[in-house]
Amino acid sequence: MNSTPAAAAPNAPADTALSTQIQLAARPVGWPTHDNFRTVTVELPPLSDGQVRVVNEFVSVDPYMRGRMNDVKSYTPPYALDATMTGGAVGRVVASASDTLAVGDVVLHNFGWRDIVQEDATAGFRVVPELPGVPLSAYLGILGLTGLTAYIGLLDIAALKEGDTVFISGAAGAVGTAAGQIARLKGAGRVIGSAGTAEKIALLTEKYGYDAAFNYREGPVRAQLAAAAPDGIDVYFDNVGGDHLEAALASFNDGGRAAMCGAIGSYNSTEPTPGPNNMGNLVTRGLTLKGFTVGHYMHHFPEFMREMTEWFQNGDIVFDETVVDGIEHSVDAFFDLMRGGNIGKMVVRVGAGSRLSDAG
Amino acid sequence: MNSTPAAAAPNAPADTALSTQIQLAARPVGWPTHDNFRTVTVELPPLSDGQVRVVNEFVSVDPYMRGRMNDVKSYTPPYALDATMTGGAVGRVVASASDTLAVGDVVLHNFGWRDIVQEDATAGFRVVPELPGVPLSAYLGILGLTGLTAYIGLLDIAALKEGDTVFISGAAGAVGTAAGQIARLKGAGRVIGSAGTAEKIALLTEKYGYDAAFNYREGPVRAQLAAAAPDGIDVYFDNVGGDHLEAALASFNDGGRAAMCGAIGSYNSTEPTPGPNNMGNLVTRGLTLKGFTVGHYMHHFPEFMREMTEWFQNGDIVFDETVVDGIEHSVDAFFDLMRGGNIGKMVVRVGAGSRLSDAG
Repeated sequence: MNSTPAAAAPNAPADTALSTQIQLAARPVGWPTHDNFRTVTVELPPLSDGQVRVVNEFVSVDPYMRGRMNDVKSYTPPYALDATMTGGAVGRVVASASDTLAVGDVVLHNFGWRDIVQEDATAGFRVVPELPGVPLSAYLGILGLTGLTAYIGLLDIAALKEGDTVFISGAAGAVGTAAGQIARLKGAGRVIGSAGTAEKIALLTEKYGYDAAFNYREGPVRAQLAAAAPDGIDVYFDNVGGDHLEAALASFNDGGRAAMCGAIGSYNSTEPTPGPNNMGNLVTRGLTLKGFTVGHYMHHFPEFMREMTEWFQNGDIVFDETVVDGIEHSVDAFFDLMRGGNIGKMVVRVGAGSRLSDAG
Repeated sequence: MNSTPAAAAPNAPADTALSTQIQLAARPVGWPTHDNFRTVTVELPPLSDGQVRVVNEFVSVDPYMRGRMNDVKSYTPPYALDATMTGGAVGRVVASASDTLAVGDVVLHNFGWRDIVQEDATAGFRVVPELPGVPLSAYLGILGLTGLTAYIGLLDIAALKEGDTVFISGAAGAVGTAAGQIARLKGAGRVIGSAGTAEKIALLTEKYGYDAAFNYREGPVRAQLAAAAPDGIDVYFDNVGGDHLEAALASFNDGGRAAMCGAIGSYNSTEPTPGPNNMGNLVTRGLTLKGFTVGHYMHHFPEFMREMTEWFQNGDIVFDETVVDGIEHSVDAFFDLMRGGNIGKMVVRVGAGSRLSDAG
């Protein structure tokens, strides 16, 4: 691994460079395959005035990306075909023809699945500090939009109150591991999680402070949730949809609230998935289901960052990452994420130093 | 019709009287039948200290009653077997052994499907004024919980804003006819309704101020709603559930809100009804589905009554009633309501005067 490739060649990219990029070649129907993607090598010209060149250290793969591969109306336009996959990434400025960003700056951006980015410095780079002992990948997870998603979902969308019993599906994922800990820190009475392997279930109670956890592959979710929450649940953080949402609706106490964050259980379905068969509980129990995407809540980012950094520094928050090495394995990382192969945040460690062109 | 039977015999019921009452004899499975009910005659003793005797003029039959016939956890306990069906009713005090209610007072109460009520005066009678030109049945509909349900659902639960496009299902029913008019009075941009007969559809646009209406029996709801709301909807008032909710989810603009009031489409199903197959739109469009029952919002009653009375007196509100004569036909009235046989509020006109015992 070469975690700071830029340091090796700080001034080289003033010339040309080769950027490896992953494009969407065709829209997946059902489960995506390698045929839906294409790896290209793009020659980056010398910097124009106002541009920066950034060597990515980590690139994010996230469940929401599956939705954007479809050509349907959504909160953001679908991914364009034959264009490089966009998404969160963190890297280091290796060359700058701009006054606003300097060589060595660590920047967070949304240019996605590529090892080297060359864009105008004003095109959406945010400088972030290097924190001692914290990998830069944390900015794609617990200290970034993933953490904010958990924070907003629980506190703003589901209006978590002290003493609430909270159920979180996909609990061992990036959002789930953050949400469980935030629920605990904010005074939840009981926190219950679901995941799909014995290893994940053990982590939830042993590392992430969940009071109870169950493996959704081992029996009906509805019965397992009812057993784990004999007095019902007040808040549900939904990352899965389907049978998990149905189970939550069955277990909700009066006035229950669900933060609808995702539905990874149906992202790769080719047929529309029937909804829960107990929607009538919304009326009789006065329930609220509220969907959200974090992009609409960026105004809460400073408040989140203040609180999360404090928790972090106090040792109140732990996190896991599942790291896949090599930008050329981004697609495999994404597939593994879709199959639940990750614990905590799934990231791609770029290791692009060796591909920096110094022959231009 | 004898709309003020009490006036004929103001002091008679100090003695015994016979009360005709409808009891739940067995819990319906699927569509209820006459076998699920029983009509009994109860001899009321002379008044005890603190009691009143009330002769009902109108008794309410409402969709929510079907849910209470099942033995399931809900916001109110299920109806007890072999007990008289409770529910809204309005009547007149014909005898009083209490200082708080006087003979002649018109009272609203929840003692339900019976012609004569005898209870402690403190047991939940609310005195209401007789308004010129307004039948007392209006207290069971537009001036009562039905009107409040429409008002709360639109303004509080769905947070109606000026200019919103609003879709209301079951639009020709008691709640729907009120909701359409309230939406219009509160500045909705476009109001769309669905109902199940040509007569109802015509009324919606010609009498109730709907901009568009469609017959859900004439084609897929999703396609008909999309045609009626080419720019999408912002608010959905759900009285039906099922395909109507799915259509609303398909047509919602970003940030859409649904007030989930009822699901008459599935009350008589013996199998759990699959939910909408597009729940994922909650996430991608940031939608909110919020269920409610009016009982939790009684603190808004004074504000509702002030505003509704003003609209009423200004001629801004119209209403229809479907009246079934005779307490002994309460069950038929309820069945007809379940089949959508009503326009506006369905009430039973008791006409109990002739059955007052003056032979005690």
